[in-house]
Amino acid sequence: MTGLKVLLVAGTHGNEINGPWLFEQWEGRQELIDTHGLETVCVIGNPAAFEVGRRYLDRDLNRSFKKELLEASAHIDLEVDRANELLALYGPRGRVPSQLAIDIHSTTSAMGCSLVIYGRRPADLALASLIQARLGLPVYLHEGDASQKGFLVEAWPCGLVIEIGPVPQGVLDAIIVEQTRLAINACLESIAEVISGAVVYPERLIVHLHLGSMDFPRHPNGQLAACLHPSIVGNDWRPLEPNSPIFLRADGEIVHFCSEKSAVPVFINEAAYLEKNIAMSLTRREIWQVEESWIENLHEIVAINEIN
Amino acid sequence: MTGLKVLLVAGTHGNEINGPWLFEQWEGRQELIDTHGLETVCVIGNPAAFEVGRRYLDRDLNRSFKKELLEASAHIDLEVDRANELLALYGPRGRVPSQLAIDIHSTTSAMGCSLVIYGRRPADLALASLIQARLGLPVYLHEGDASQKGFLVEAWPCGLVIEIGPVPQGVLDAIIVEQTRLAINACLESIAEVISGAVVYPERLIVHLHLGSMDFPRHPNGQLAACLHPSIVGNDWRPLEPNSPIFLRADGEIVHFCSEKSAVPVFINEAAYLEKNIAMSLTRREIWQVEESWIENLHEIVAINEIN
Repeated sequence: MTGLKVLLVAGTHGNEINGPWLFEQWEGRQELIDTHGLETVCVIGNPAAFEVGRRYLDRDLNRSFKKELLEASAHIDLEVDRANELLALYGPRGRVPSQLAIDIHSTTSAMGCSLVIYGRRPADLALASLIQARLGLPVYLHEGDASQKGFLVEAWPCGLVIEIGPVPQGVLDAIIVEQTRLAINACLESIAEVISGAVVYPERLIVHLHLGSMDFPRHPNGQLAACLHPSIVGNDWRPLEPNSPIFLRADGEIVHFCSEKSAVPVFINEAAYLEKNIAMSLTRREIWQVEESWIENLHEIVAINEIN
Repeated sequence: MTGLKVLLVAGTHGNEINGPWLFEQWEGRQELIDTHGLETVCVIGNPAAFEVGRRYLDRDLNRSFKKELLEASAHIDLEVDRANELLALYGPRGRVPSQLAIDIHSTTSAMGCSLVIYGRRPADLALASLIQARLGLPVYLHEGDASQKGFLVEAWPCGLVIEIGPVPQGVLDAIIVEQTRLAINACLESIAEVISGAVVYPERLIVHLHLGSMDFPRHPNGQLAACLHPSIVGNDWRPLEPNSPIFLRADGEIVHFCSEKSAVPVFINEAAYLEKNIAMSLTRREIWQVEESWIENLHEIVAINEIN
């Protein structure tokens, strides 16, 4: 047991109930998840929203960790308060300091069991490469999107999102729970091996780089003018070729993917993204060499609590 | 064209968005649905809840059509106001009187395309038999459940629910939309044939009689102690045999169906029923002869607007 505390967050969105349920069961039965000797802190991200089964009350908590919101002089809303509270409690300089956060989500999209990382922080890339080597899961690297910022894990020195689906909001699903449990286990096992020195890094990390998001076609009044085409729904991570069908209008007219290059779609038909004007996001698959600088950065972060 | 007005309601639950979307498209393109010469009125059941993408604001509108709520002397809440407003506008003695209501829903359960009727009102049974003969869909007859009352269609002389799934709340799905369109078409075609005299009734109606609902196992503090077992999820309408697995605890322990008889489960893992303490409902499949009295009752109701 080192001094490192791993922050595990679920229910950052109050209507994603599988992670929180696992936490509840785990509380009484420590054997349900092997922490591999690590000290973990389990927290419901947005307990007020979780209580009423809604994604959020005033604002998406997972877009609330922006400097300008967190440091505002005036009171803003419930979620910004909660963001500041989480940092005060479990942030890198919090009361129970943690350097590493795993934020557990579910989605209505057929993302399977996947990881999301933000920006190109070296330690995140190193940790993602270890989890990918263990489980073979896809990694979505979200970056450079001015309209989507302030993600929870960005406020910790190292952190990533476990994203699992498809499951409707508010539905408890044994398979999603089991995938969540396996993903948490793989994270903790990887971190434990970094600490123990038993870690072996893979040579490569396969990443899906965020290119941008695509909205639904809309009528002039803002109403949706088309559904996603049935041939694309459920096919997250499968390359979308130029001219493939993507949307279907009510009269049967098909809208095709207007692009010269193929792209890999993710978060296809995520219920919560309708209000964010996102029908899906598009990515480019790349294979990166795992770099020594990533590994060093992860080891530095993991060692901080040991030194303190 | 007779004087009969058919009331079509969608968005009675504000997070069921496929029916409302079809209404929006239909508004500009009358050819999208063949009304078979019938006059229809399309209404969003709960526009305030639809606006914010929630099932309801204060109370489930589809449990608000109870005499004691509708006739209360004091103001109660938004949904009871809306229930009274819908009746004042489109009720059988409303400003635009309608004798027949079709309420369009979606569900996270794998109900496929199905009908729900309430009690054993003869006209509902006659209409359901016609739609079942046309589409072959299953019919759930909900009755005798003191905890679930006040459904919208019960406030009209004849009415039924179209219930289609699985689709997550807040997700637009082309296949669900198409099933909804086909089901509306089948309803209107059946009613039009009743009016024209071209109707031919089937000999039998297959009904699934409500026996009761089953809650999740819970911890003493009310938290869920188990998920539904993966082998039952998605198997709505498929007979559940005694001793089959139904729930799965986090430690892998299976809870079996403790019954001497088989039952047919419906609404398995409907997200909105978690708060109603319903993991699924159980039914008994029966085959009923279509009775002359049902047919007479439907013809009387359909003729009311013609006489007026």
